[in-house]
Amino acid sequence: MLNETVYKRITPKIAKDLEDIVGEKYLIYNDIESLEVFSHDEIPGSEYRHMPEAVVRPQSAQEITEIMKLANREMVPVTPRGAGSGLSGGAVPVHGGIVVFLDRMNKIIEIDRENMMITLEPGVVSNDINECLKEYGLFYAGYPMSLESCYIGGNVAENAGGGKAVKYGVTSRYVLGLEVVTPTGEIVELGGKLIKNVTGYDLIQLMVGSEGTLGFFTKIILKLMPLPKAQADLLCLFETIEQAIELVPRIITETGVTPTSIEFMDKDSVKVACDYLNETLPYSDCGAMLLLTFDGSDMEQVEKDYELVGKFIEKNDVQQIYVADNPATSERVWKIRRNIAEAYNIISTRQSGEDLVVPPAQIADLLAELQSIIKKYDIMLPCFGHAGDGNIHARIVCPPEWSNDKWEATLPKILEEIYNKTINLGGMLSGEHGIGSKRKKYINKFLSEEHLNLLGMIKKAFDPNNIMNPGKVFDL
Amino acid sequence: MLNETVYKRITPKIAKDLEDIVGEKYLIYNDIESLEVFSHDEIPGSEYRHMPEAVVRPQSAQEITEIMKLANREMVPVTPRGAGSGLSGGAVPVHGGIVVFLDRMNKIIEIDRENMMITLEPGVVSNDINECLKEYGLFYAGYPMSLESCYIGGNVAENAGGGKAVKYGVTSRYVLGLEVVTPTGEIVELGGKLIKNVTGYDLIQLMVGSEGTLGFFTKIILKLMPLPKAQADLLCLFETIEQAIELVPRIITETGVTPTSIEFMDKDSVKVACDYLNETLPYSDCGAMLLLTFDGSDMEQVEKDYELVGKFIEKNDVQQIYVADNPATSERVWKIRRNIAEAYNIISTRQSGEDLVVPPAQIADLLAELQSIIKKYDIMLPCFGHAGDGNIHARIVCPPEWSNDKWEATLPKILEEIYNKTINLGGMLSGEHGIGSKRKKYINKFLSEEHLNLLGMIKKAFDPNNIMNPGKVFDL
Repeated sequence: MLNETVYKRITPKIAKDLEDIVGEKYLIYNDIESLEVFSHDEIPGSEYRHMPEAVVRPQSAQEITEIMKLANREMVPVTPRGAGSGLSGGAVPVHGGIVVFLDRMNKIIEIDRENMMITLEPGVVSNDINECLKEYGLFYAGYPMSLESCYIGGNVAENAGGGKAVKYGVTSRYVLGLEVVTPTGEIVELGGKLIKNVTGYDLIQLMVGSEGTLGFFTKIILKLMPLPKAQADLLCLFETIEQAIELVPRIITETGVTPTSIEFMDKDSVKVACDYLNETLPYSDCGAMLLLTFDGSDMEQVEKDYELVGKFIEKNDVQQIYVADNPATSERVWKIRRNIAEAYNIISTRQSGEDLVVPPAQIADLLAELQSIIKKYDIMLPCFGHAGDGNIHARIVCPPEWSNDKWEATLPKILEEIYNKTINLGGMLSGEHGIGSKRKKYINKFLSEEHLNLLGMIKKAFDPNNIMNPGKVFDL
Repeated sequence: MLNETVYKRITPKIAKDLEDIVGEKYLIYNDIESLEVFSHDEIPGSEYRHMPEAVVRPQSAQEITEIMKLANREMVPVTPRGAGSGLSGGAVPVHGGIVVFLDRMNKIIEIDRENMMITLEPGVVSNDINECLKEYGLFYAGYPMSLESCYIGGNVAENAGGGKAVKYGVTSRYVLGLEVVTPTGEIVELGGKLIKNVTGYDLIQLMVGSEGTLGFFTKIILKLMPLPKAQADLLCLFETIEQAIELVPRIITETGVTPTSIEFMDKDSVKVACDYLNETLPYSDCGAMLLLTFDGSDMEQVEKDYELVGKFIEKNDVQQIYVADNPATSERVWKIRRNIAEAYNIISTRQSGEDLVVPPAQIADLLAELQSIIKKYDIMLPCFGHAGDGNIHARIVCPPEWSNDKWEATLPKILEEIYNKTINLGGMLSGEHGIGSKRKKYINKFLSEEHLNLLGMIKKAFDPNNIMNPGKVFDL
């Protein structure tokens, strides 16, 4: 069993070898305080924290191949890390060893206007991509909620979804090429500036979403699109969660319009994010909101779309619809939406952030199940997220009066129940946050033994020493 | 070396076992004439033909698992087959053995309107999908040129592209769930009715385009969209190939409009297809045509788009632009486009159909290289295809006066030159037709040894006896 791999500790000799590869300035070793930063991602609480023994900050694929060859020789685990904004422990070194921090590999290598593609290193902050593309009239459709901090390499590793996936799909749709350093330290070029390519199995899509367990992405080629020239949002307030959520799948099927975003936020989520940002939204009388975005090549078309959808929503039980048709108002509302997760991260260390996904038409059933769990266990369970994709973030928050023992005894029962209900609705364990270390122990509820065997065979083939980000996604 | 696997012949005892699995009626054995049909796909000529020893026509995943278990026990190769409309030998049993013909697994299992998804068996004819969806106002975006005959299972196995990929992307974007029978005979469910899902590695995308070497697809869940309510085509005639092709990448970058299709056809391609269909297009004075399609939710928007693009094209060296804004005219033009490959298949058995793909902005450079090859070798080399994706089908047709020896000596040199030029432009061996047996010997020009090693490790892990569609894609 590879699972029982005994890893070696990093000796001063190994540390010296790492220093020879990346340079003294880019090695952190024997410095608890500096290493501590790399012991966690954005999951609240201490349960998922693990200290690395060393952190290196390479500047090239070549340096990473040397690190991987050393790690294989010495049997030391290696964990890749982007901005550390993940929510599943993907960048946390659960078996210690080396963290490879990719912050220095942050170059935008090329903007190719004629092909509408961009070539990047993994450490580019996702938000910077569209910032630098604006002047070219081009646009990358990825829009993870952590976009102001997360790295594009992490987006690819997690197959980030985000706010615009209803219309534009998730990260995987835009990755056309990858330079990969494999777990054994080989450099492999996959794909290229190609819209179509069936030359060999699709290893790019195997890499996207592999959560740092199958390779480092040292170059990323992304497909771009013409920048939509017009955009508007509708913020729709409903008295109850049910009234809001039951409309979600019907918006597309009954109007024929596919909005860019269909986001759901319950009252608690909005309140916590507003308090965190010292912002306001008119949430006090409503039970839930839908935030819809529309974009297109001109405002006329965008207006037509949002008016069609607005009229459909008005025919149902809506309290109020606000239109945000200027960038400042839109950004104010979206900033609240983007900060819900972070706002919750700081209110309690006793919580579990879930990332459930079900068929989009079953999203109302899922919310109903979650509401019944709130009643049964008398807990807080705010819900928000990408409802249009069938993807809901549900935060199980421990009531302040519960003892730790009670929390630790009850949480597994709640999760068991939520997951069973998700499975009954045809759903899965994670829509976009990944499995990582946080959800690994539950994956066998969702995937069959035969399925997990196939995953395991791929992992063993690519990483025979189980050296790359071990302890993640599934047990070998 | 698995490549040197010695397969067993099908004995009467094995044939009897197959009969026990599928029933006497659905086994073809010891019947050369009936077996011959399964010895080829749509590649012209005899070079790529191989006779199966037996053909079975199962009706369920369960029957296929039994076939695979038998084949592994007996070391008999198994080749899956859809409609046999492929162009790379993917469905041809190059090592003999069993062909599994999927024509009986042709049920549309479910149309789920609320989720906008359809669940199908692999033997459904692709064209039938949209036929049956019309009444629901829904639409599947796949549009392979062989759609009147090809099966959806083959589209998934080859990751078919086709005419609408500029706007809608290729088959892979629409496959949300698969039931797979693995080469060792396990049934595995991948994905589901889920728009987003990061629960484990993306095995669906590994399966899509695996050309029948990693598993049978016994159930396929496809994402649908609202049926576009309006559509129009522009047929643009140019004096020269250069004038037509240089506009292709500029259409999107300079107008901001993404047409549904941007197809290129040179004069010879149009002429051959018109002759084959006994149809007419005004090709005699032009050197090449672009066929553009636009679709959308209303005619007003479609008109706006095609007028914008039409004006852009008019500013350049165009001879004539025809608008086809009714279904009958559109279908007439598209039928010619769809039948080019078939028209060429029957004019000569001495030809090689190439499926080159380059970055879209390099498509004019590729065409220029191909024109120089025509001059150098004094051959026919008609070009047509999905120019908007950077994907061109180039038919190397032997001049009638050449001896077979000359043809066989020259073709490898021509291919070598074409492939080298494609590589220099950042291109790949196949955009949508697949590698199969036809292009296998060239794949190592395009993919590195390390890359091929990764493919080989996956194949060996999934198919340890190398029993499933051996002799395809790459050498183990």
